[in-house]
Amino acid sequence: MKYCSHCAQPVALKVPAGDSLPRFVCDGCGRIHYQNPKIVAGCIACWGERILLCRRAIQPRHGLWTVPAGFMENGETVAQAAARETIEEACAEVEELRLHGLFNIPHISQVYIMFHAHLAAPRFSAGAESLEVRLVTEEEVPWDALAFPVVRRSLRLFFSDRARGRYETHMLDILPSPMPPS
Amino acid sequence: MKYCSHCAQPVALKVPAGDSLPRFVCDGCGRIHYQNPKIVAGCIACWGERILLCRRAIQPRHGLWTVPAGFMENGETVAQAAARETIEEACAEVEELRLHGLFNIPHISQVYIMFHAHLAAPRFSAGAESLEVRLVTEEEVPWDALAFPVVRRSLRLFFSDRARGRYETHMLDILPSPMPPS
Repeated sequence: MKYCSHCAQPVALKVPAGDSLPRFVCDGCGRIHYQNPKIVAGCIACWGERILLCRRAIQPRHGLWTVPAGFMENGETVAQAAARETIEEACAEVEELRLHGLFNIPHISQVYIMFHAHLAAPRFSAGAESLEVRLVTEEEVPWDALAFPVVRRSLRLFFSDRARGRYETHMLDILPSPMPPS
Repeated sequence: MKYCSHCAQPVALKVPAGDSLPRFVCDGCGRIHYQNPKIVAGCIACWGERILLCRRAIQPRHGLWTVPAGFMENGETVAQAAARETIEEACAEVEELRLHGLFNIPHISQVYIMFHAHLAAPRFSAGAESLEVRLVTEEEVPWDALAFPVVRRSLRLFFSDRARGRYETHMLDILPSPMPPS
């Protein structure tokens, strides 16, 4: 951020009076521009024993697999965001959404909020951001070709809950992976 | 938003190619400025049978009662945000935070994420944004002088869970109150 979005004057990073963190403050109008974490809403969509995975047609992680998920929009609920992303990425409708987990990713200031849900029908296809969409069993999940650590953790917890026959709402933090040994 | 925060040229509200919603797009550099919901993290802090309430020293709802809660910051987890707000507003330390509920408030593009927790010690005092802080029993909660509907719903669910001896993670939507009859 270099300029004030309200008056186009330069902004400076400083701690406003009564605050404790540096913010972008406008040199002209004095407006404070806060920056806050974003919510990513996602969905583990089930049809019988199988779940829906999408292969990414966009960066980052082009070609790798994920569950439908994306940034929540203003004016919607988190569940609506998860259902919308499932329509956009997999052309699939979900129902009976239940809260699966809240995953903090503080180093990129994101909070993933994941649901599990049932497909309304076994109808799906690749949306604009997907190369392909498949229904897979737990054994067929391409664990080494998943796009993000949060997807792996989320799916492991889901299958574990399902095996026990008891679904919980999880909360955990996803920290940066250590660099592989050189 | 009137100007691009990157190059100071005017922005226009338009639907970018491949998108489905209007965004602020820079006429100069083409940058798209997304706006997303904010997370408010809050905490029902308990000491024995009593919970901590703060009377607001700031607008909106100056003089009314609430639990410690505020906007989550970049780089922290939701639980860290809830604990930080409890320090800032009530000068109190909490531990054993558990996820209480996720409350969508879509008409103001906020998601409240509430915890319940234990005070580390019965030490508290009014922070800069509070007029006073008190430990109150369920019977002493000033239900008609609470600052926000989400606080009322959240406390009702907490006391109901506590009475049953079983704490759940709740998810619900807070919709605008209908106008009172004239």
